[in-house]
Amino acid sequence: MCEANAYLQEGEEEVLLMEGVDVIEPYEDGLRLVDIFGKQKFIKAKIKDMTLLNHRIILETGEDKK
Amino acid sequence: MCEANAYLQEGEEEVLLMEGVDVIEPYEDGLRLVDIFGKQKFIKAKIKDMTLLNHRIILETGEDKK
Repeated sequence: MCEANAYLQEGEEEVLLMEGVDVIEPYEDGLRLVDIFGKQKFIKAKIKDMTLLNHRIILETGEDKK
Repeated sequence: MCEANAYLQEGEEEVLLMEGVDVIEPYEDGLRLVDIFGKQKFIKAKIKDMTLLNHRIILETGEDKK
């Protein structure tokens, strides 16, 4: 299975947001994530980095870019 | 292996841009893609849709949104 885990970057930390992510798509001013069970989450964030072989998706809210 | 193929949406068609994509990250006003061999491509596009279980990443340039 090739799902990934999505983490939200908060300062220096990466907080696990969602496991088993299958679908990622833009939604309004953020993203829609859907996991392998069909559960979805909406988050005002953008993709900071993604490494599929490591199953890691790092998201950031951009709020610390003032 | 959990790499994906990146396609560029051109009108109704999806044109294969890069196979075996591992890393995707924002780069300037577009994206940087790196495949499993370390080859990289830069493209002025954004992620339209991504389904990891299907190993598909759809990119769009946004030029047809005028």
